[in-house]
Amino acid sequence: MKRIAILTSGGDAPGMNAAVRAVTRKAIYEGMEVYGINYGYAGLVVGDIRRLDIPDVGDIIQRGGTRLFSARYPEFATEEGQLKGIEQLKKFGIEGLVVIGGDGSYHGAMALTKRGFPAIGIPGTIDNDIPGTDFTIGFDTAINTVLESIDRIRDTATSHVRTFVIEVMGRNAGDIALWAGVAGGADDIIIPEHEFDMESVANKIRDGRDRGKKHCLIVLAEGVMGAEEFAEQLSEYGNFHTRVSVLGHIVRGGSPTARDRVLASKFGGYAVDLLKEGKGGLCVGLLDNKLVAADIVDTLENKKHNPDLSLYQLNQALSF
Amino acid sequence: MKRIAILTSGGDAPGMNAAVRAVTRKAIYEGMEVYGINYGYAGLVVGDIRRLDIPDVGDIIQRGGTRLFSARYPEFATEEGQLKGIEQLKKFGIEGLVVIGGDGSYHGAMALTKRGFPAIGIPGTIDNDIPGTDFTIGFDTAINTVLESIDRIRDTATSHVRTFVIEVMGRNAGDIALWAGVAGGADDIIIPEHEFDMESVANKIRDGRDRGKKHCLIVLAEGVMGAEEFAEQLSEYGNFHTRVSVLGHIVRGGSPTARDRVLASKFGGYAVDLLKEGKGGLCVGLLDNKLVAADIVDTLENKKHNPDLSLYQLNQALSF
Amino acid sequence: MKRIAILTSGGDAPGMNAAVRAVTRKAIYEGMEVYGINYGYAGLVVGDIRRLDIPDVGDIIQRGGTRLFSARYPEFATEEGQLKGIEQLKKFGIEGLVVIGGDGSYHGAMALTKRGFPAIGIPGTIDNDIPGTDFTIGFDTAINTVLESIDRIRDTATSHVRTFVIEVMGRNAGDIALWAGVAGGADDIIIPEHEFDMESVANKIRDGRDRGKKHCLIVLAEGVMGAEEFAEQLSEYGNFHTRVSVLGHIVRGGSPTARDRVLASKFGGYAVDLLKEGKGGLCVGLLDNKLVAADIVDTLENKKHNPDLSLYQLNQALSF
Amino acid sequence: MKRIAILTSGGDAPGMNAAVRAVTRKAIYEGMEVYGINYGYAGLVVGDIRRLDIPDVGDIIQRGGTRLFSARYPEFATEEGQLKGIEQLKKFGIEGLVVIGGDGSYHGAMALTKRGFPAIGIPGTIDNDIPGTDFTIGFDTAINTVLESIDRIRDTATSHVRTFVIEVMGRNAGDIALWAGVAGGADDIIIPEHEFDMESVANKIRDGRDRGKKHCLIVLAEGVMGAEEFAEQLSEYGNFHTRVSVLGHIVRGGSPTARDRVLASKFGGYAVDLLKEGKGGLCVGLLDNKLVAADIVDTLENKKHNPDLSLYQLNQALSF
Repeated sequence: MKRIAILTSGGDAPGMNAAVRAVTRKAIYEGMEVYGINYGYAGLVVGDIRRLDIPDVGDIIQRGGTRLFSARYPEFATEEGQLKGIEQLKKFGIEGLVVIGGDGSYHGAMALTKRGFPAIGIPGTIDNDIPGTDFTIGFDTAINTVLESIDRIRDTATSHVRTFVIEVMGRNAGDIALWAGVAGGADDIIIPEHEFDMESVANKIRDGRDRGKKHCLIVLAEGVMGAEEFAEQLSEYGNFHTRVSVLGHIVRGGSPTARDRVLASKFGGYAVDLLKEGKGGLCVGLLDNKLVAADIVDTLENKKHNPDLSLYQLNQALSF
Repeated sequence: MKRIAILTSGGDAPGMNAAVRAVTRKAIYEGMEVYGINYGYAGLVVGDIRRLDIPDVGDIIQRGGTRLFSARYPEFATEEGQLKGIEQLKKFGIEGLVVIGGDGSYHGAMALTKRGFPAIGIPGTIDNDIPGTDFTIGFDTAINTVLESIDRIRDTATSHVRTFVIEVMGRNAGDIALWAGVAGGADDIIIPEHEFDMESVANKIRDGRDRGKKHCLIVLAEGVMGAEEFAEQLSEYGNFHTRVSVLGHIVRGGSPTARDRVLASKFGGYAVDLLKEGKGGLCVGLLDNKLVAADIVDTLENKKHNPDLSLYQLNQALSF
Repeated sequence: MKRIAILTSGGDAPGMNAAVRAVTRKAIYEGMEVYGINYGYAGLVVGDIRRLDIPDVGDIIQRGGTRLFSARYPEFATEEGQLKGIEQLKKFGIEGLVVIGGDGSYHGAMALTKRGFPAIGIPGTIDNDIPGTDFTIGFDTAINTVLESIDRIRDTATSHVRTFVIEVMGRNAGDIALWAGVAGGADDIIIPEHEFDMESVANKIRDGRDRGKKHCLIVLAEGVMGAEEFAEQLSEYGNFHTRVSVLGHIVRGGSPTARDRVLASKFGGYAVDLLKEGKGGLCVGLLDNKLVAADIVDTLENKKHNPDLSLYQLNQALSF
Repeated sequence: MKRIAILTSGGDAPGMNAAVRAVTRKAIYEGMEVYGINYGYAGLVVGDIRRLDIPDVGDIIQRGGTRLFSARYPEFATEEGQLKGIEQLKKFGIEGLVVIGGDGSYHGAMALTKRGFPAIGIPGTIDNDIPGTDFTIGFDTAINTVLESIDRIRDTATSHVRTFVIEVMGRNAGDIALWAGVAGGADDIIIPEHEFDMESVANKIRDGRDRGKKHCLIVLAEGVMGAEEFAEQLSEYGNFHTRVSVLGHIVRGGSPTARDRVLASKFGGYAVDLLKEGKGGLCVGLLDNKLVAADIVDTLENKKHNPDLSLYQLNQALSF
């Protein structure tokens, strides 16, 4: 393979740029040419494609967001969209594609693969909800950003003896809530993957108060319900001086952590290794701390991401 | 004066602890004894008062929130509350009081002063809306926290070519929006102190888009309206792919900036100087970069805080 | 086991407090009593021991350093020291000990174990150089702190077109240099575990310059040589406008990252599980993303920590 | 004036980019054209000059360093250098120049002014040592960066009961040491502008120790002496378990604080206002919180920067 392309798709995640840099530099190191596709699949279909050289990926390893831009593009689910995309790739003489993104992005890569165009998926999303990997690019940065906010809110909660319900991203996956909750010393963590009982939550807050605890922090994944609704339901069990904080888009950007940049660099380098060997139809991942590649069709159709529920049990024991 | 007390009141602000430390250490340095009152005026009335010595204020200069805790206590507006408070102070042999807080806290200090008990007000609130000072303790930290979020949101806005309406604290004062808006390179800043025209806002966004600008950031003080409502009104003038972010309580806590710690230390030291000279009924401030003290009654009744509107004009010129 | 104790030893590492909190809360949750030993083995020998209850570990999960203090205490290598330590533990009715620290701390735990007192080691050091675990508590925070400095130095290096040699901690282990180097986009990483050739380093810098690269960053583990010496040797191959930065103690403290707090919580909880089952003489670790416990004697005597040298190869390919 | 240019010179400082952005946008807003000169006076002399338009200053307000690059260029002190510079400016039809930098940069601007070319100086240096302004661009960021390091070092100093001597930048000016020292709760601050007595320093440390204080932090401006030398002199008065930390280049870069970005925006906008009115030979500043412009020749020849020594007295009273 002499010429490959790269795109980012779906919600931006810190570390995407580090991955783009790694793919570009590794490919050039291996004697290949690299093209960047702007705006994900939307740019692919219209041919918004440009050559990437070393200076193009200079000074971006530390930057949040994606310099290749991103866009939601449901039209790529159609046969027409996919064929147009492949046509563009062929027009530029591109033989392989690296896709960085989440679930939707993987589906695009799978579709291209099924049509005979070699694509490699790199998991990039703050939600950590991609099958085939323990960690996605962006997750580590996101939980640290959430954690900074939790630490700040703890100051106020302690100063005013209040309960805070902190809503974090995670429509289907509780990973952000779990990790940030354990790291933040949350009194309770509410996630889609585990049932909860509002009365027990209320009792736990009361017990803490009785013991002289100043603050109470509950970390809630948005997929369960909104923070306002949670606070309202909680208020039926007592007055806990509850306040609500919704951490939305501020958690998405920012300079990536060391862990995310290293992960992105590893994934990017590995994706190039695979394409160089002529392999496509794969998604890379980190499983049990080892770099792996799995069939993208099989991964999407048969695998499921599971959060580390041992963290849930641990938190129950640490925050009784 | 041989024995003074200190309390924090109203919403917590980063730097309150640095001020408590400064008052305590300066007073001990001057040969006085210091007492800390927990939970603001609520604690004063019930006598939740304890001796503060040097170790009690160790390792707190860098911490957000207030180690003396705070509480809203409207009952202190009554004669009964005030007399009870003075009774408690006399019981402990306390001759002067330092109050750190916002507008409401100042009113308590004014009431005590009018009843003959010497109180000194130190402006501590993230909102910067206290008369008699250009800057309050906590404001500098708050604008930097807002700025971090704006910088993160810019990553996402640029990656996805979106408009963001970022709602920040400031019910009556646009200071946070103004400073963070200028510092964040906001395309528009909407504050209570200046009228705005939604059509012009829309035109400005359109002009930026036409020029190839990827992101558009609008910083909105909550006192004008909510971000959701703003986005809805804006949508009547076109589709700007608008997203909304409400920065609420995360802006309140956190380790204070250098500027806030220095300001808190100056105010705290100065308040002790004044009490040592037997002066009360004053509020300290920083006006034109100079440490000042003014009559608290006059300040509250006749002065008004004015935001630096030159920043508004400047931003108009820089973000056309 | 009804009563256990905990100490921190060796250089402080961010997350030690989170581990102390986890041990304390988990043990109380399991119905045990917990004692904290101040100043590591030095405090153990003199009996500087106090009961820890839930409020004692409140508000420390986010704090750097160790609230149990630490000290170097070579005397604990002697029989006399060890016997005195065991005597103190018995005096307090303590049946098991958790030791958080690095290599030296593990040797103390091994000695106690050999003398029949059950001790569990938790790896806590920024250097990541402990056998039996892929990651130690504090390492993730340290590499992120180094990374912040690298990012800042890149601003200056780019502005002035300079080469920087950045010396980081790591007397025997190159882990910090490797991870921070890859994450920081270092042009070269110099570690004790891999030979290097000064002429090649010089050539690489020259190649970058010829290509128009503004900055050049070399991350150097202190174990290889000092940054000043490195810069001097480099200067024999050309004038690269080299500056030197030694990141010393600033990398040691600071609020722990999410990853370090979660790791500390897991290790702490697991250590209590082991002691509860009457097990001692073990050290806990994270191997291949799984929580493990291994014989501490065997680990110290037969195992070796190996840095992830694939990162070295990766960086060669990404920074040519 | 229809066409102006801008350059940055001397050591880079956070906020320089925000100033370049402000000058560029304000000038375009006022109907002028703007040119950027790379590498300061060195680039001026060789004509490394390019047109700046709005997109050229996009996404730089938050970035450290200077996108116009900088260089030391002593040759600009010669008549030949200055005449060549003016020739280049005339070749491009440039009628006015904005210079952002420190003392040396101001001298260049003064020289151009004396030769009849209108130049405006904007104070940009982390050292805060420019006459004619209370604050320079970059100072606020620098003291916050130093403060972060002090906070981290405090963790280690407390954990190990140690004394730290922290050397900060400031060859002639103690401003960084003063502000960061007060904000960091330093036990002592050693600056060029105030004599000190080593025995008193030692006594203060001893007093703190006797009182049970865990850590002792001494902030030292490099202009007085090096930290190693200081520690050695101190050791003649007792063993204080002293460690040394030299904060060098890590303090120079980094994303500017809100305060620095606002200051840079104000200065940039104001400089354009002055040039628009045909005024040159001035330097802008913030004195007593007011934007001012003064004769650059008079300022350089007759004014002197004075640090806020009230901070020194304050710290003596707060850290006894």
